[in-house]
Amino acid sequence: MPYAIDETHDPNLESWVESANDPETDFPIQNLPYVAIELQDHHHGNEPYCDTGVAIGDHVLPLVPALVEAERQNMRGIADPWKMTNNFGRLSAADHVAIRRALSQLLAKGNPSESVLCDKLLHGQSSRHYFPVHLRSQPDTVGAACLHDYTDFYASVYHATNVGSMFRPDNPLLPNYKWIPVGYHGRASSVVPSGTPIRRPSGQLSPAEDGGAPSFGPCKLLDYELELGVVMGRGNELGSSIPIGEAEDHILGVCLLNDWSARDMQKWEYVPLGPFLAKSFATSVSPYLVTMEALAPFRAPAMLRPEGDPKPLPHLFDEHDQAQGGIDITLEVLLASEQMRDKGMDPIKLSSGSFKDMYWTIAQMVTHHASNGCNMQPGDLLGSGTVSGPTRGSRGCLLELTWDGDPFAKEPKLVPGTERTPIRLPTGEERKFLGDGDEVILRGYCERDGYRRIGLGECRGVIEPAAT
Amino acid sequence: MPYAIDETHDPNLESWVESANDPETDFPIQNLPYVAIELQDHHHGNEPYCDTGVAIGDHVLPLVPALVEAERQNMRGIADPWKMTNNFGRLSAADHVAIRRALSQLLAKGNPSESVLCDKLLHGQSSRHYFPVHLRSQPDTVGAACLHDYTDFYASVYHATNVGSMFRPDNPLLPNYKWIPVGYHGRASSVVPSGTPIRRPSGQLSPAEDGGAPSFGPCKLLDYELELGVVMGRGNELGSSIPIGEAEDHILGVCLLNDWSARDMQKWEYVPLGPFLAKSFATSVSPYLVTMEALAPFRAPAMLRPEGDPKPLPHLFDEHDQAQGGIDITLEVLLASEQMRDKGMDPIKLSSGSFKDMYWTIAQMVTHHASNGCNMQPGDLLGSGTVSGPTRGSRGCLLELTWDGDPFAKEPKLVPGTERTPIRLPTGEERKFLGDGDEVILRGYCERDGYRRIGLGECRGVIEPAAT
Repeated sequence: MPYAIDETHDPNLESWVESANDPETDFPIQNLPYVAIELQDHHHGNEPYCDTGVAIGDHVLPLVPALVEAERQNMRGIADPWKMTNNFGRLSAADHVAIRRALSQLLAKGNPSESVLCDKLLHGQSSRHYFPVHLRSQPDTVGAACLHDYTDFYASVYHATNVGSMFRPDNPLLPNYKWIPVGYHGRASSVVPSGTPIRRPSGQLSPAEDGGAPSFGPCKLLDYELELGVVMGRGNELGSSIPIGEAEDHILGVCLLNDWSARDMQKWEYVPLGPFLAKSFATSVSPYLVTMEALAPFRAPAMLRPEGDPKPLPHLFDEHDQAQGGIDITLEVLLASEQMRDKGMDPIKLSSGSFKDMYWTIAQMVTHHASNGCNMQPGDLLGSGTVSGPTRGSRGCLLELTWDGDPFAKEPKLVPGTERTPIRLPTGEERKFLGDGDEVILRGYCERDGYRRIGLGECRGVIEPAAT
Repeated sequence: MPYAIDETHDPNLESWVESANDPETDFPIQNLPYVAIELQDHHHGNEPYCDTGVAIGDHVLPLVPALVEAERQNMRGIADPWKMTNNFGRLSAADHVAIRRALSQLLAKGNPSESVLCDKLLHGQSSRHYFPVHLRSQPDTVGAACLHDYTDFYASVYHATNVGSMFRPDNPLLPNYKWIPVGYHGRASSVVPSGTPIRRPSGQLSPAEDGGAPSFGPCKLLDYELELGVVMGRGNELGSSIPIGEAEDHILGVCLLNDWSARDMQKWEYVPLGPFLAKSFATSVSPYLVTMEALAPFRAPAMLRPEGDPKPLPHLFDEHDQAQGGIDITLEVLLASEQMRDKGMDPIKLSSGSFKDMYWTIAQMVTHHASNGCNMQPGDLLGSGTVSGPTRGSRGCLLELTWDGDPFAKEPKLVPGTERTPIRLPTGEERKFLGDGDEVILRGYCERDGYRRIGLGECRGVIEPAAT
């Protein structure tokens, strides 16, 4: 098990990068997430490209010069820095631990590397941050794995029950839910980095009445979904599977993910083959990939299954995963309308929940995904599904938040204008679903007594009006 | 409209490649599909790699030397052959027409290029053929577009009605079917070239009774699905759409596609988010990409919608597409068990249908897919969904073929052992679903009076036993 708590998690460690010692920063020396940074120079014909680095306070340290210095200092497990940063998918779990230890030592206050590396540091404000796995919507990232396939799960039983109650009032939670980490293939081409504007999609909207004709036009019920993104490191060969005890060794890290959703399109299209255009117009990811190593102090038991729920089948059950498969990451959603931003108002918090309330663990999702021999690839992205908890304040999408609250109501509540409870913004505006100009901000962080708080940064997106 | 019938379709044209003049060949000079061929040489460090060529009779002519010769002969529209073959996705519809005309002239009997190009011809038997778009399961293809995203549609109303009757006896054809070309995202990493062995997947199999527990084990109801694959050429930007009148200009060509399906896994997992592991273990494609230009003589009207069916919404309706959006491609499935092959028996034909019987056209599928602003990319693969026609002999999967035939039976027929009508093989073996060692062969071809027959080649796969 590579994800042990070690000296890199010591809360007293400080960095020679001063901004990393700020108690408010998401990126103290105990975090060290990967990030891609936009650069432009004559080596690349003055075309913008991305390089991979590690976020430290307000700065980013490019990985290659850092590991070259680590090799010069003979740090344990660091050999051939160019190869190590050339494709995370080839690295073993031991390599990841060695890289984390080396970065921690290099960036620690008092390390002689300060004089060598301080010139290499890039200030966070001066260049845009991108996802450290190559997306088709961002400049090429040198040596990075590419996001090939994107899969979205549905691992919160609270979300599944709430949404099921609205879409299928007679049948909210389907019989497979407690046996299978239900998931579906998503669209990889439209995964975009945080900050990319989100154009309101057009599509076929559900008819107002049974047997009626759908209309084609801009989505009226546009929503976000608060999710955790999980990025695969090492994959598996086609025809082989990933035992649950080894599943986490295949994971590089986690990010924030917004699974933008057009509810009126979704309701009409999703039977029998699942969500398609209601989701494929955009999925946003935060640029920071927080490694499984960094999360070691924040591990939690898997969600306790209520009395009467089945025990997972043997291939999805592992004692260690039951004891430590959860992660206590607080996940929040904030909203700022255009009016709010124009008036200089802060965004308002819509919800706050924890990833430890998920019914299925990350290891169970990965093992399930590969259980039929499907080949996972380095850079593959898995969405957790909307992270909703048991309380009203921890509901991870507007569909749940503005619902009137009766999970057994006979009438589906997806038709505009029916009894949704709008959210009142400080400007007096009301929202049942997202308006043009609204900015949605996802945030995530981990806190535990005796450990330094680490953060996942932010995932932002502003809604643009539909194309005319 | 680039796909006009022109001199390249003249049935009297013959090639200096003699095997192309054989009346039985799928690849006469009137066809000219793209294919990737495996090579190995010291330029590539003796690692196997693929190059793109054009199939002609039993041979393959690599594209670069062909277009270099075309440029030397000042053929219309051919400039910078290296760039032209370096990414099909960048080519315009006019470029595709120019390439077809040039290849047709170069390969025509009497063209002086014979003496230059005959040394460049590769014999089909001497090197394996691969899909001309790069798949992660085949050697790197020089300059090819990469298969990024794979989408599978459900465009045969006969298939949808038959399957719907089994999975949802009370509700076979859902209300959206006649409004939306229903589709879902598939798994791109496990798309494999014809000839790749298919390992029987394991997974959670549906419980025998309501409320029962599923079991985990090798799939017992393994099936094929006969589909047409459509490969995108030029894509569209995120946030933009593709008008139906322009949709076919974005398509490079078509191939055969086998959407292998584990029915017992599918039945259990598919609600509410659609098929996932029941399909993601493998999808096979034939290596020949028959261009839209080659198919010009075989265009047909879109399927006539029965009285009472709605007219497609305006964005999915185009007069030209109604008149010419269909393609009369005969599609067949053959099966040979291991015993049959051991005894030297020919495969038996299981079904034969036509792509012109699809409810939705290719243009409608492409326009729908991009209608929400989803960005299509060069090399994207679209599956048509199972091609089934109105008759028993044109059913494109075993699920339909061995069904007892009552579309309104109250009992779903997906449980093993219920009244399925097995197919009897010439060895006396019986098949309700696929057995280990079975080889499934898809074939496709176009015939029309006054034109030369062209073929799509074959898509093959042998079932291997499940991993232990």
